[in-house]
Amino acid sequence: MAGQDLRYQADGLTMVGSLHRPAKGGPAPGVLVFPEAFGLSAHAIGKAERIAGELGYVALACDLWGERKQLTDMAALGPALGALTGEPSRLRAQVRAALETLRAQDGVDATRIAAIGFCFGGTMAFELATCSDISAAIGFHSGLQVPSLAADAGRIKGKILALLGADDPGVPPEMRTEFTRLLSEAGVDWQMTLYGGVVHSFTNPDADKAGQPGFLRYDAPADRRSWTQMAALLGEVFA
Amino acid sequence: MAGQDLRYQADGLTMVGSLHRPAKGGPAPGVLVFPEAFGLSAHAIGKAERIAGELGYVALACDLWGERKQLTDMAALGPALGALTGEPSRLRAQVRAALETLRAQDGVDATRIAAIGFCFGGTMAFELATCSDISAAIGFHSGLQVPSLAADAGRIKGKILALLGADDPGVPPEMRTEFTRLLSEAGVDWQMTLYGGVVHSFTNPDADKAGQPGFLRYDAPADRRSWTQMAALLGEVFA
Repeated sequence: MAGQDLRYQADGLTMVGSLHRPAKGGPAPGVLVFPEAFGLSAHAIGKAERIAGELGYVALACDLWGERKQLTDMAALGPALGALTGEPSRLRAQVRAALETLRAQDGVDATRIAAIGFCFGGTMAFELATCSDISAAIGFHSGLQVPSLAADAGRIKGKILALLGADDPGVPPEMRTEFTRLLSEAGVDWQMTLYGGVVHSFTNPDADKAGQPGFLRYDAPADRRSWTQMAALLGEVFA
Repeated sequence: MAGQDLRYQADGLTMVGSLHRPAKGGPAPGVLVFPEAFGLSAHAIGKAERIAGELGYVALACDLWGERKQLTDMAALGPALGALTGEPSRLRAQVRAALETLRAQDGVDATRIAAIGFCFGGTMAFELATCSDISAAIGFHSGLQVPSLAADAGRIKGKILALLGADDPGVPPEMRTEFTRLLSEAGVDWQMTLYGGVVHSFTNPDADKAGQPGFLRYDAPADRRSWTQMAALLGEVFA
C-alpha cells in the first residue's frame, strides 16, 4: 500500500515523512524508521511499507534533512552530520518530534512504539531510547557513537538491538566494545549480532552503486537475517 | 512425545542417545543436539524434544561420556575434557559417529543435517562442521576453542551461528575475536550474537543450582531469543 506524506516540524525544518498503515484497521503498535545519513529515500520508505504490510504495525519513515532533501555530496554530508551530533539537543528535538508525530496519528497505540534505523538512523533510534520510553531501538549497520549514551544510558527503558557487519570499517571493534560497555554498566537489555564477511549498508541494494565494496555493500543473507531478528524483537516487545 | 533410546559406538564407548521424531511422518531434516560438558541430561534431551515437536525435525540428543554417564565432579571433568580436546581425532570420531547414526535412521533426510550444542557441545557442533558437510552448526554459550578450526576452517561448508552471553567468563572477548577471525579468513558464513548482561549456561534453568551466578546463570530472555535465532537459521538452511 502506498504511503501517505506526513509533514511535521522538527529542529526548525519541515520534515516530510512517509506514513504506512497495515491493511487491518484498529489500534496497532507504531514503528519509527530513521533513514541512512543521506536522507529519506526509497530504502527507508520501503522498510516502513514492509513493516506495515508484513508485520501489521503503523510505520513512519522519517525525514532527516527537511523537505525530504538528499545529501548525497559527501563533502556536505560530513559537516551536516557533525553539526547534528555536536549538539545533541538538536538531534533529540528531531527524534522526539518524529515520536510525537507518530504517537498522535489515529490508530497508533501510543504505549507501544519502537524505533529502527539504518546507518546514522540507527544512531538516531538509540538516541531516542536515551530520552523516551520507547519499547525498543534497533540499528542496522548503525553508527554506535550515540551522543547522549555516556550520560543517559541509565535512562534507557527499551530493549536495544544492534545488527552489524563484522567488517564494517565505520563500526570497528573498539566502537562496539565502548557501546556495549556503556549499556552493560547501565543494566540495559541489549543484544548485538555480527554478520561475518559483511560491511556497511548491507540492507541497501543500492549500496553497490557507490563502487566501494570494501565499505558499502549489499548482502542478501544479512539483510534477511537482520530483518528476521528485528521482527522477533518487535514481536517480543509488542506482545 | 517421549524419546527413544538409541545406542551407538563412538570412540570406544557405548553411547546412549535419545532420538525424537516429529509427529508428522515422512522424511524430515535431522538435528544433532550435543549436550553440556557434564554429559547428556534432561536439558539437551528436552531441547531435542522441542526441535521435533515444535520445528518438525528428527533430533538426536547425543551422549558424551558413554552409557549416559554424568561427570558432575569438576575435578574429573577438566581432565576428561582435556583428553578429548587434546586428541582432535577422538573428538571427531565421536561427533562423526553421532552424525552417521542420525543419518542412518528411517525418516531422516540425510542431505539436510545440522548440529547444535550447548557449552562444550557447541564446540562439538563446530568441530563436526570442520569435517563434514552438515548444513549448519549452532552453539549456545559455546566453547569457541574448536580443536581443528585453525587447520580446517576452510573445509567448513555449513553456516555457523554462535549465541553467547556477553559476560560469559569462559568465553572472553579475545576468544570470540580469534574464533571469528579464523572463520572470516576462511570465508565461512558466520553470525555471532551477544546478549548483554548474560553469562554462561543461559539456556539451562538448572544452572542456578550451582550457586555461581557470576558464571552459571539461567536467563529467560536470552534462552527464548537464542532459540528463535536457532529456529530461523535451521529454517533457512533446510528450506
